[in-house]
Amino acid sequence: MSFPSRVIAVDVMGADLGPGEIIKGVVDALCDGGDYRVILVGDRDIIRENLERQYGGDCSRLEIIHTSEVISMEEKPLQAFRTKKDASVVRAIELVQSGRASALLSCGNTGSLMAGSTLKLRPMEGVERPALATVMPTLNNYIVLLDVGANPNTTPLQMMHNAILGGDYCTRVLGIEKPRIGLLTIGTEEGKGNEVTLMAHEVLKKISDLIHYVGLIEGFQIFRGEVDVVVCDGFVGNILLKTLESLIVQLKAYIKEEFMKNPLRMLGAVLSKGVFAALRERLNPETYGAASLLGLNGVVLKSHGSSTHRAIRSAMKVAVSVAGQEATHTCHKKINLANEKIM
Amino acid sequence: MSFPSRVIAVDVMGADLGPGEIIKGVVDALCDGGDYRVILVGDRDIIRENLERQYGGDCSRLEIIHTSEVISMEEKPLQAFRTKKDASVVRAIELVQSGRASALLSCGNTGSLMAGSTLKLRPMEGVERPALATVMPTLNNYIVLLDVGANPNTTPLQMMHNAILGGDYCTRVLGIEKPRIGLLTIGTEEGKGNEVTLMAHEVLKKISDLIHYVGLIEGFQIFRGEVDVVVCDGFVGNILLKTLESLIVQLKAYIKEEFMKNPLRMLGAVLSKGVFAALRERLNPETYGAASLLGLNGVVLKSHGSSTHRAIRSAMKVAVSVAGQEATHTCHKKINLANEKIM
Repeated sequence: MSFPSRVIAVDVMGADLGPGEIIKGVVDALCDGGDYRVILVGDRDIIRENLERQYGGDCSRLEIIHTSEVISMEEKPLQAFRTKKDASVVRAIELVQSGRASALLSCGNTGSLMAGSTLKLRPMEGVERPALATVMPTLNNYIVLLDVGANPNTTPLQMMHNAILGGDYCTRVLGIEKPRIGLLTIGTEEGKGNEVTLMAHEVLKKISDLIHYVGLIEGFQIFRGEVDVVVCDGFVGNILLKTLESLIVQLKAYIKEEFMKNPLRMLGAVLSKGVFAALRERLNPETYGAASLLGLNGVVLKSHGSSTHRAIRSAMKVAVSVAGQEATHTCHKKINLANEKIM
Repeated sequence: MSFPSRVIAVDVMGADLGPGEIIKGVVDALCDGGDYRVILVGDRDIIRENLERQYGGDCSRLEIIHTSEVISMEEKPLQAFRTKKDASVVRAIELVQSGRASALLSCGNTGSLMAGSTLKLRPMEGVERPALATVMPTLNNYIVLLDVGANPNTTPLQMMHNAILGGDYCTRVLGIEKPRIGLLTIGTEEGKGNEVTLMAHEVLKKISDLIHYVGLIEGFQIFRGEVDVVVCDGFVGNILLKTLESLIVQLKAYIKEEFMKNPLRMLGAVLSKGVFAALRERLNPETYGAASLLGLNGVVLKSHGSSTHRAIRSAMKVAVSVAGQEATHTCHKKINLANEKIM
């Protein structure tokens, strides 16, 4: 078939660095090849202007859908979603809803994207609420961390769904057949932690025939390569992710500053630049530049509001790899079996 | 007066690296000078043997109190505390209770230390539960983070107490007169976060004449030097602290490994060793090797179970600086005023 079946809708509006940065990332990703098409959703004139500047040539894999409204980062998510019917993110969600697009990528207002996707696409059968999952580099491996902010008051049942969804996502994106799933808490002795986590632990033990649940883990175990999926509530996950990302950024700046302090150190930096290239590569949050909203009838990805074109380029890779498949058939089955076991 | 009035009781038992490591740290701290004495609490024979090996000379500032029992890391905190009346940690708490010691430092079972201290020393007037506060290095400054694990189900009222206690501790330990206090959440827009944090935010706004409350902060703001005190519940704080400490350890190991990969890089490492010395110094969790249990009638400090003698040496400095003063008079007053405002 000469016409690619995978179509990624990209909401180019509302991001911190402007539509140009996103469009550049998309164009770079298209240049990398791959059997998919892209629909750019946003202001037609802005998109055309940027495409002309950056692309010029072959636009056969690109389509533009014009929208007249934008939801800014500051707006109240649900209200904005309800009043701005022609906002880029709303139209992009509708493309997934109608089946015209097989995945959606947005860098805009997270709340609007989540509320809108949940309202229009609805949660998968058996799932109560979607969870935001991110792939995070550790020093030895990559792990899936969820929920990183979709649901700050996750219930034990929702954590069970998230464990299954996260495991499935880990298999699809990282290729790990039987991912080791851990539940994040503050002490692995029985009885330690908060109520929700302790209840979730009991629930997860009951479905250990469906997933490879390794049990409670503490913060210091995340970076030791002991698990492939870390489950926590959306409040903890969001704080953890943002703190870690910020620490990495600050560390890089600090090391750079220290190296510039005298000529000897600068020479040292030149000789050992491979070390930092390796470190940068290893801990680059841009490697998997998108978080996935799991548990919906449709594939929705969210990149940082401040994503660079490099981050968008990697986000497109993730989007293409999961396009059209919000969860495997096995995952659907596991969710239903788990619900039956628990209810 | 020739007899120092500050007395630090050190529980030398139950730590991961054994009593020798703790005793070495204490002896090193004593050699650094300072107007205080130390009571080593634990097995007399083990203490004497280690002292002879490491000290030899002047023991005039050291006293030993023999205890016959130890609470291990694996034991159930409250139960162990109740049955082992002659455990080192129990006796050490009693020394603070009776006024014989002006501070206590322990590296043993955290749960037993917290439960025991709370039962024997009781919370300060107006405070419901103690909070564990740690001084954490960022790249620009030092901050106080609390609660890091004393109370995984912190209520909004307890968070208010913790904000006041944390501010007071920040002034005493870091010398910051009017510390900027932030409440950790997942989005600074009004209405985002979990219920407890949103309620705590409302409470803290009401007492802004008593503390310098800067409002809600997100994870990425911790390392930007925007606040001096970060308040969060004990579940979030514990996970955050452990994850960050572990990331730093892993990063160091990774960088070292990468530098050893070829001779050029090794030369680079030699030339730029100042960079890593600076980084190590900056991010060394051992710089302030102890967390304080705030809000009790008595000074209780906790060091990591795996503390090295270097960590103990710095922990002793913290202990000496806060010995005898569980909170300032102003802090007591603020707690009462805040309670009146809220009730």
